[in-house]
Amino acid sequence: MIKIGIVGGTGYTGVELMRLLALHPQVSIQVITSRSNAGTAVADLFPNLRGHVDLNYSEPELEAYRDCDLVFFATPNTTAMKQARALTSAGIRMIDLAADFRIKDIATWERWYGASHACPDIVERAVYGLPELNRDAIRAAEVVANPGCYPTSVILGLLPLLRAGRIDPASVIADCKSGTSGAGRQANVSTGFCEITESFKAYAVSGHRHLPEIRQVLQSVDADADVVFVPHLLPIIRGIHATVYATARGSADDIQALYEDYYQQEPFVDVLPQGCHPETRTVKGANICRIAIHYLPESNKYVVLSVIDNLVKGAAGQAVQNMNLMFGFSETSALESAGVMP
Amino acid sequence: MIKIGIVGGTGYTGVELMRLLALHPQVSIQVITSRSNAGTAVADLFPNLRGHVDLNYSEPELEAYRDCDLVFFATPNTTAMKQARALTSAGIRMIDLAADFRIKDIATWERWYGASHACPDIVERAVYGLPELNRDAIRAAEVVANPGCYPTSVILGLLPLLRAGRIDPASVIADCKSGTSGAGRQANVSTGFCEITESFKAYAVSGHRHLPEIRQVLQSVDADADVVFVPHLLPIIRGIHATVYATARGSADDIQALYEDYYQQEPFVDVLPQGCHPETRTVKGANICRIAIHYLPESNKYVVLSVIDNLVKGAAGQAVQNMNLMFGFSETSALESAGVMP
Amino acid sequence: MIKIGIVGGTGYTGVELMRLLALHPQVSIQVITSRSNAGTAVADLFPNLRGHVDLNYSEPELEAYRDCDLVFFATPNTTAMKQARALTSAGIRMIDLAADFRIKDIATWERWYGASHACPDIVERAVYGLPELNRDAIRAAEVVANPGCYPTSVILGLLPLLRAGRIDPASVIADCKSGTSGAGRQANVSTGFCEITESFKAYAVSGHRHLPEIRQVLQSVDADADVVFVPHLLPIIRGIHATVYATARGSADDIQALYEDYYQQEPFVDVLPQGCHPETRTVKGANICRIAIHYLPESNKYVVLSVIDNLVKGAAGQAVQNMNLMFGFSETSALESAGVMP
Amino acid sequence: MIKIGIVGGTGYTGVELMRLLALHPQVSIQVITSRSNAGTAVADLFPNLRGHVDLNYSEPELEAYRDCDLVFFATPNTTAMKQARALTSAGIRMIDLAADFRIKDIATWERWYGASHACPDIVERAVYGLPELNRDAIRAAEVVANPGCYPTSVILGLLPLLRAGRIDPASVIADCKSGTSGAGRQANVSTGFCEITESFKAYAVSGHRHLPEIRQVLQSVDADADVVFVPHLLPIIRGIHATVYATARGSADDIQALYEDYYQQEPFVDVLPQGCHPETRTVKGANICRIAIHYLPESNKYVVLSVIDNLVKGAAGQAVQNMNLMFGFSETSALESAGVMP
Repeated sequence: MIKIGIVGGTGYTGVELMRLLALHPQVSIQVITSRSNAGTAVADLFPNLRGHVDLNYSEPELEAYRDCDLVFFATPNTTAMKQARALTSAGIRMIDLAADFRIKDIATWERWYGASHACPDIVERAVYGLPELNRDAIRAAEVVANPGCYPTSVILGLLPLLRAGRIDPASVIADCKSGTSGAGRQANVSTGFCEITESFKAYAVSGHRHLPEIRQVLQSVDADADVVFVPHLLPIIRGIHATVYATARGSADDIQALYEDYYQQEPFVDVLPQGCHPETRTVKGANICRIAIHYLPESNKYVVLSVIDNLVKGAAGQAVQNMNLMFGFSETSALESAGVMP
Repeated sequence: MIKIGIVGGTGYTGVELMRLLALHPQVSIQVITSRSNAGTAVADLFPNLRGHVDLNYSEPELEAYRDCDLVFFATPNTTAMKQARALTSAGIRMIDLAADFRIKDIATWERWYGASHACPDIVERAVYGLPELNRDAIRAAEVVANPGCYPTSVILGLLPLLRAGRIDPASVIADCKSGTSGAGRQANVSTGFCEITESFKAYAVSGHRHLPEIRQVLQSVDADADVVFVPHLLPIIRGIHATVYATARGSADDIQALYEDYYQQEPFVDVLPQGCHPETRTVKGANICRIAIHYLPESNKYVVLSVIDNLVKGAAGQAVQNMNLMFGFSETSALESAGVMP
Repeated sequence: MIKIGIVGGTGYTGVELMRLLALHPQVSIQVITSRSNAGTAVADLFPNLRGHVDLNYSEPELEAYRDCDLVFFATPNTTAMKQARALTSAGIRMIDLAADFRIKDIATWERWYGASHACPDIVERAVYGLPELNRDAIRAAEVVANPGCYPTSVILGLLPLLRAGRIDPASVIADCKSGTSGAGRQANVSTGFCEITESFKAYAVSGHRHLPEIRQVLQSVDADADVVFVPHLLPIIRGIHATVYATARGSADDIQALYEDYYQQEPFVDVLPQGCHPETRTVKGANICRIAIHYLPESNKYVVLSVIDNLVKGAAGQAVQNMNLMFGFSETSALESAGVMP
Repeated sequence: MIKIGIVGGTGYTGVELMRLLALHPQVSIQVITSRSNAGTAVADLFPNLRGHVDLNYSEPELEAYRDCDLVFFATPNTTAMKQARALTSAGIRMIDLAADFRIKDIATWERWYGASHACPDIVERAVYGLPELNRDAIRAAEVVANPGCYPTSVILGLLPLLRAGRIDPASVIADCKSGTSGAGRQANVSTGFCEITESFKAYAVSGHRHLPEIRQVLQSVDADADVVFVPHLLPIIRGIHATVYATARGSADDIQALYEDYYQQEPFVDVLPQGCHPETRTVKGANICRIAIHYLPESNKYVVLSVIDNLVKGAAGQAVQNMNLMFGFSETSALESAGVMP
C-alpha cells in the first residue's frame, strides 16, 4: 500500500484520477490539495465520488505531502516545476499530468509555454511517460512527464510505421479531434454548452503546444520526422480521434500484420481488424488506444485512425499506468474496466 | 421604417433579437450597446450575423438612443429600470426582455430580485407583453414587460382551462424543463459543455423567480389560482417543455375543442390534434407555442404539454411580436419562419 | 465460480450486463445467445468489450444453458416466460430483465402487454428484484423479476415517505425523464440521432407499461397509493430523473433525517444533503440511486428528486446486485465503480 | 409565381426544401409525393411545417407533376434518372438533389453507384449546380445536378487556390466531418441517438461516392488535381467542416486578399478575416459557406477551413439558389435568413 498525494484535484483530470485510484487495492490517497477549495469535501464538488473518496481538499503546502510515496500534479502548466525540487529532494516521486517536463529542449519549452523554466536539470532526468515507448525507464523514474492527450493518440498511431521505416517521415499530417473535457473545467464563455454543442471547429491552426511535443517524440524515433498538426474541438465530453496521413514507402501488403505484431504484448493498445474504423465511444472511461491502419493505393498514403479517451489513456489512466510501473504493481491494476458503451 | 436601439446585445436574447430584426422590412437597427464590447463589430462576436448586421457595439449612453422610436433591453435584471425614466421622458418606447417590469407588487419584486426598484410608477403603467392576454394594451403601451420564458409556456398552456373554470385553480403543478440558453452567455463552470451535456437535473426547487410571475398572471385570471413550479435544465440549446398537471372540474368531453377554439385566431399558438405530444424541436428558431391537452380519467387530471423556443416565443420573438403590435405592423412580420427541424 | 448464460445479448442491457460481469471474480459467462447474430463475435458488435468478452453469439437453444447456474434474459418482453418452465425444471435460476414476471395480476399483465401469459404459476413465485424492498426473498429466489427503470427510480424515491405515512398516498404525481437507451437498440426512425438530439418530449401520457408496475409496488406498501405517471424522453444516453410530487401529512421537520436513516445501510442508495439537486451524470455507469427530498411549505408538498442510470441500477446493475444476493456473493461485487463524470 | 413539385419529400432534404420554399414569394408548391406516405399530411410527419405547408403526400405518378414548372427530386439515388426522360419531354425542368446527374463519366458513375444509368444523354446535358462555378449554365439548364454536400464544402474551399495555380494540385488531402443528417432519415441502428452522440468516427476510408465527384470538378479546373478524401461522422445534426491541406506553390503573402477578391461578389460565400476558424454553428439553417485560409510556413502547406450546413448550402438551400437562377428570381430569394446561433 503506497501513499498518494494529488495536487490540484478540482479539474477533470483530477476527478478522473480519483475515480480510478479509488479502485486500486494498493493505493491510499492521503491528501488532495486545492487552494481555492481548501476545506471543501471532494464529494461536494464531484458527487459521483460520494462513498468512494472521503477527503476534504487541503491547502497546497509541502508539509501535506511529507508522507507520500508519490505525488500526482493535476495542475495547470508551470505549477509542478515550482515544487519539483522540494519533492524530489525529499525522496518523493512525482507524475506531472501537465506539460512542465515533457519538452527536453528548454528554449522550445519556454517559447511555447511563455515562462522561464524553474528546473531544467529535473527536465533532463524526467522520463516521458508513454509506457509503449519508455516502459523500463518509467519503472525507475523519479519524475514522469505524463504525455499530452493529442501526442498519445498520434504517437501510438504512428510508431509502427515510423519504426519500420514505412513512411516518408516528413510527410505526416495529423488531423486531430478532441472532446471538450480537454479544454478543462474553467469558467469560460467559449466552452459553454451553447457554444460547443451542435457545432464543430478547428482551432490553433497556426500552432498548438502539443506540436513540439509530437515532433520531439517522432524525431526521437526518426530524426527526419515532421508533422502538420491541426486540432479540432468535438461536441463530446471524452474522446480524441486522430486521423493521420503519411506517404508510404515500400510495399503495404503486410501492414496489418506489422501493426498487430508491434502491439501484440501491449495491454492498452488494441489494433482493430483490417478495414475497421474505431469509434471514440468504444474507449469511453477506459485506458485503451484503439487503432486501425488503412492503405490507399491510388495515392500511396497510409491513413491511421487512432482513438483514446483523452481523460484516461490521454491523462489520468496513463498516469495510473505509469504509477503501476513505478511501484512494481500489475500494469493493469485499477485499469481493467471496459469502455462504457453506449 | 422605425429606428431601433438595443441595450446589451451580447447575450443570447440579444443576438436572437438581431437575427429576427434583420429580416424585418420596417425596422432599422440604429444602435447596439455593450459596455464591455464597445468598438467591437457585432459580427465578430456573432459570426452568424456577418452580412446581416453591420454595426459595432457602442457605449450604453442615453445620447445613443436619442433618435430611436423603440429601445429593447436585452440586459440583466435591474438595468432597464435605471434608464426607464429618462427614455420614457424622451418619448421613447421600450421593451424590457428582463424582469424589471413584470411584477406589479413592488415588495414581491424586491424580495425575489434582491434590489430596490428604481421606478415603481413605471411598473404600474407597464404592460405585461403576452399578446394572447393583453393584445390591445400592448398596442398602446409605452413600456412593455416581455414575459419570462417559463411563464410564457405555462400560462399559454393553462389559459383555456383556467378561463373556462375547468380546473381546481389551486391544484396546478408545473414541471418545466428548459434548454441551457435560458441560463445566458456568462462564463460559468456550471453551464460548461461538460457539465450539461449527457445530464439532467432539477434546480431551484425551493423557489425560482418565475414563480411569482406565473402566480401573478394566473391569479389575474382566477384569484384562487396557485402553482407548484419546479424547473429543470435540459442538455439542449433551445426549448422549453412545460408539463402541467391540474385536477379537472366538470366534464372533459369537449376539452380538445375548447383548446382549439380558444386559440383559433392566434397566429403563434398551435393546438395539436388529440393524443399528440409536442416536441421542442418543432419550434426551434420559430415564434410559436405548441400545446397538447390530455385528460386522464383514472385520476381526473388534465396534463397540458406546452413547448416554445425559450429564445423566440420565450424572449426575442415575443419582443418582436410586441413591437409589431406597438407600431401597427403586421403581427407576424419577421416571424414567418417555420421551426428548423431537424 | 458460477456459470452464467445470457439470452439476447445484443441490446443495450445485454452489453451492459457483460461489461459489469467481466469484472466479477466469481462469475464465468458460458454462453450468450442471439438468433440473428449467431456465430458473430460479441466484440464485433460491441468493440468496447474487445479483450474483455471473448465469446461468439450462439443459437438460443435450451441445450446451450444446460450447465448454467443462472440465466439472464436481456430479451424483449414475452421471451423469458416461454423458456421459464424448461429452465426452472432443470434447476436453473433466472433473472428476467424484461417485464414477464413483474406484474402479479395476470389479467393486468395481459392487458398492458397484449399477450397471454405462458406461466402464471411461475409469476406467482417469482420475486420482484428490488433489493431495498425484497432482499431476503431475492436470496432464495428461483426466478427474479428485475424491476423496470422508471419504477426503480420512483419507488426508491417514495419508499421512506410511503412507509412512514407521511403523504396522502393517492396524491402522487411522478414526472419522469429517461435517457434514450431506455428505448433499446432497434432500428427506428423515431430514435434516430437527428430526431432525439436538441429536443425533448413527453410520450405515452395516456398510459405507459410501467404504470401498473409502480402502482402494484406502491400499493403493496400502502393499499391506498396511486400515481399519475408521465414519462419524457431525454436527449442523453443514460439516466433517469424522477421528479415526484406528493401532498404532505404531518410535520416535515424531520424529513431529511427520515430519508438518511431509511437508507443508511443501503449500499446503492445515496441520500443527498438537504437542498441538493441530484444530476443524472453523477450516476453514469454506476449502480446507485441518488435522492434528494424537498419540502415546499407554501403548497405543503414534498418534491422527491431521484436519479439512476437506467442501464445500471435501472437494469443490468440491479440484475448483478440480485445475482450477488442469490448466490451469496458480496452484494457490491462488480458494482464498485464510481459514476463516470464528466 | 411558378408551380413546384417535390418527389420524395419525407427525408431531411425534403423537409428542408419545404421549410425554405414556404418563404418564397414567387413559388407555389403544387404536389409532394411519397409512395409510403401517400394520403398523410406533410405536417403530420414534420410538425414544424404546421401552418406553413398545407398539403398531403400523393402517389409519385407522372400525372401529378403535369402542371409543374419545376420538379425537385429529394429522393434516393437512381430515382430521378428513371423519370427524367418523361419530365424533360414534357418540358418540365428538374433539380436532382441526389447523385444521378453529377458524374459525367457514365462508367465511373455505374461503378460507384452500382447500377446501370437510365439516361446517359441527359447526364451529358445536365448542369452541375454549383452557382459559384456554373452560374450562367444553370440559368439555362433543363436538368440541374445539385452538388453533394462534401463536394460543395471542399470545392468552394479550394477554388481560389486551384484557379490561381497556388498549390500542387495532386497534393490535396480533404479531411471532412459531417453532421448526421447527411446520413438521411432511415430506420437504422447505426444512426441511432445512442450510437452517434458522445462519439466520433471516420468511415468509408477506402472510398466514398463523393470522391469521384470532387475529383471530377477539381480536374475540370486543373487536369492534374487529385485528392485524398476521408469523411467522418459528427454528433451534430447539421454542419460540414472540411479541413483541406495542400502544398503551396509560390508566395503566400497575398493569399487572404486572393480569397476575399475571388468571392467578393458571391452572396453565399463568406471569407473570414485572417486567422479565423469558422464554426459550423454559424451557418446552421443558412445558405452560406464560410471559409478561412491559413498558411503554415514551416511545412509550406495551406490549410483551408470550410463550413456549410449540409442540408442548406449542401442540399436544399443550394437547390433553391439554383431554382432562383433558373427562373430569373433574385438569387437570394427565400435564402436571406442568418444562421440560427446559438
